[in-house]
Amino acid sequence: MTASTGQTAGTPTRPLVRYEVGEAVATITLDRPEAMNALTDRLRGELHAALRRAAEDRSVRAVVLTGTGRAFCAGQDLRELSGAVEQGQGIGDLVREHYNPLVLTITGMPKPVVAAVNGVAAGAGAALAFACDFRVAADTARFVMAFTGIGLAPDSGASWTLQRLVGPARAREMLLLGDPVDAARALEIGLVTRVVPADELPAAARELALRLAQGPTLAYAATKRLLDHAAASTLEAALDREAELQEGLVRTADHAAARKAFLNKERPRFEGR
Amino acid sequence: MTASTGQTAGTPTRPLVRYEVGEAVATITLDRPEAMNALTDRLRGELHAALRRAAEDRSVRAVVLTGTGRAFCAGQDLRELSGAVEQGQGIGDLVREHYNPLVLTITGMPKPVVAAVNGVAAGAGAALAFACDFRVAADTARFVMAFTGIGLAPDSGASWTLQRLVGPARAREMLLLGDPVDAARALEIGLVTRVVPADELPAAARELALRLAQGPTLAYAATKRLLDHAAASTLEAALDREAELQEGLVRTADHAAARKAFLNKERPRFEGR
Amino acid sequence: MTASTGQTAGTPTRPLVRYEVGEAVATITLDRPEAMNALTDRLRGELHAALRRAAEDRSVRAVVLTGTGRAFCAGQDLRELSGAVEQGQGIGDLVREHYNPLVLTITGMPKPVVAAVNGVAAGAGAALAFACDFRVAADTARFVMAFTGIGLAPDSGASWTLQRLVGPARAREMLLLGDPVDAARALEIGLVTRVVPADELPAAARELALRLAQGPTLAYAATKRLLDHAAASTLEAALDREAELQEGLVRTADHAAARKAFLNKERPRFEGR
Repeated sequence: MTASTGQTAGTPTRPLVRYEVGEAVATITLDRPEAMNALTDRLRGELHAALRRAAEDRSVRAVVLTGTGRAFCAGQDLRELSGAVEQGQGIGDLVREHYNPLVLTITGMPKPVVAAVNGVAAGAGAALAFACDFRVAADTARFVMAFTGIGLAPDSGASWTLQRLVGPARAREMLLLGDPVDAARALEIGLVTRVVPADELPAAARELALRLAQGPTLAYAATKRLLDHAAASTLEAALDREAELQEGLVRTADHAAARKAFLNKERPRFEGR
Repeated sequence: MTASTGQTAGTPTRPLVRYEVGEAVATITLDRPEAMNALTDRLRGELHAALRRAAEDRSVRAVVLTGTGRAFCAGQDLRELSGAVEQGQGIGDLVREHYNPLVLTITGMPKPVVAAVNGVAAGAGAALAFACDFRVAADTARFVMAFTGIGLAPDSGASWTLQRLVGPARAREMLLLGDPVDAARALEIGLVTRVVPADELPAAARELALRLAQGPTLAYAATKRLLDHAAASTLEAALDREAELQEGLVRTADHAAARKAFLNKERPRFEGR
Repeated sequence: MTASTGQTAGTPTRPLVRYEVGEAVATITLDRPEAMNALTDRLRGELHAALRRAAEDRSVRAVVLTGTGRAFCAGQDLRELSGAVEQGQGIGDLVREHYNPLVLTITGMPKPVVAAVNGVAAGAGAALAFACDFRVAADTARFVMAFTGIGLAPDSGASWTLQRLVGPARAREMLLLGDPVDAARALEIGLVTRVVPADELPAAARELALRLAQGPTLAYAATKRLLDHAAASTLEAALDREAELQEGLVRTADHAAARKAFLNKERPRFEGR
């Protein structure tokens, strides 16, 4: 397994995001455990760089996003936010320039993304998990929609993603009341795909990611695009988009391999192209 | 607790809607128990006035909507409807002018609205409950999508709200078949947040409303707007709207108080401004 | 019960789709059990003709769609697809011209459609079941989103319908992983309305269809249109569309009969007009 970091030249400090690739799976780890992986300007920058690297590297066919320590990600670093607000910085622009691109890089990732939720996922940190394709959670994980607790409204796409994951009634309850949702309840309402003991989380997330990394990557990317498009379109528009993307997929090597395997009654091997 | 009514000057009759305010919670009670709180022209008018009063009164920070007697609201008064149809009145206009504004005043209420569903909620009466942010139900409550039973289709927003609460498959089943859904089943499918014994309903609804009335009202209002917007928008549009509303919220007194409380490791006190 | 077929004049071969009408219910049966009712050009043509016939026949007031043998429908016939791709045929056009009209004829059917899922429903075959108003399943049924298994993305509206039936998280899991979902799990996640022993399926589907065939057909058609419209609209647009369709429904014979029955405290009899 090769390992590298999001560290930029000239930064003498320890990187806050680790980036590792093995067996076509990129693992991106938020590594600021002393602050519950809260999002500062530097951490966001390193995370965005790691996500773009995973998106662009064609040898990477699945991504795992996780954190070190007790938290997956505690959301916006409130100390930093306080400083910004007191200096009169526009928060709308902060959200637009520094949070929204993170979310869109995850949802637009042309390969599956698995969140391995190792602990608390709060505010924008929870929203990052919601943007992933799958959420596997440690039994110690919990989700806290912490926005109204500090007098704010959801950002980082949580107003859109959460209600699509658990329905608008439960999303409204979670966002207005802010009560933590533990792993068992998260499984019950469909917010996570699977819950495992905390020490088994890395293996469970990796098992799912490895399976996905052996799949038809281009078909996965098209499926993701179709689902996100259809979530806000008419049926007619969805049917048209499906036809359009299928046209491209029948010309891929993976589909040709699958057709041949079918006629020979064999299992297909996908190469992600 | 101050109490007043939706009665207008010169109307000698008993009001059909009660309006009471206490501890920043407005309680709006449909009070036509002899007709299962069925919606007549006068009851709708008084209800609309009460809802607008709650929306405009800045000292009111949460709203409870409930009914007296065996029903929450039986929906349109069929005797009145029969008269209107036989006189050749346009029902499209009746719906547009007298029902849709009720629904939009509830969904647009800039503070949380709790439906305390004390009994049968049928047709447009159920739709009023669906438009609220929370539904707490008596164990004797039931929801009846009575529209097709009289040869009509859903109105008062039920075609939009119900499928978002319970999913399109269950919404279709409820609307086409019209079978009553009791409180236990409503809880199971997420149509209500909580079910309590009938005699505990007023206290349970009030407890939730009081909690919400101590929260960051402006952040709640923004959260509601974001959820309704994102329910029918693309993710990109939702991200943009989130940034826009967050910009305003960081300038509120409640957010300033929360930032200060966070830095001092205290609990914030919200004043709803 | 009268019976006829989708066979066209001059075709000497056995029809692949059976069309039978009895007691105002049309039953459309995919009858190519030797190939698990996989969709070929001829089967699609006969199915489309049968669906249009059911849509246009005003004496038909409910439709059952089912299959013979071990499968409901295995989806696209892969042997035929392989031939088409190797001859360089555009698959986008195949989907647009031969699959999308099937889906839109089902969703646009101006009367309720019940899928009686008698066995495997895979790929586009599952998508046909998803387009119906109700899914009653044999305990031997299972749903397989087989698209990525052959390097393709969902078509026939599955990107739109499935996430609305089971939520985007479960839809994504089913579509990316392709694991079969058995009848019990399908019931649990709301993908089917009811599961019965395989030998009771025809009677269970027929019972539901007969009930629907005695209902207010025009109100059902309007309800279906409203639900599909509201699934991708704003609340405001849904409210407006509701008012528009209600206007037409109050002028129907079925609504007049229901009003009269209500005033006389009788049960209405609907004639579907």
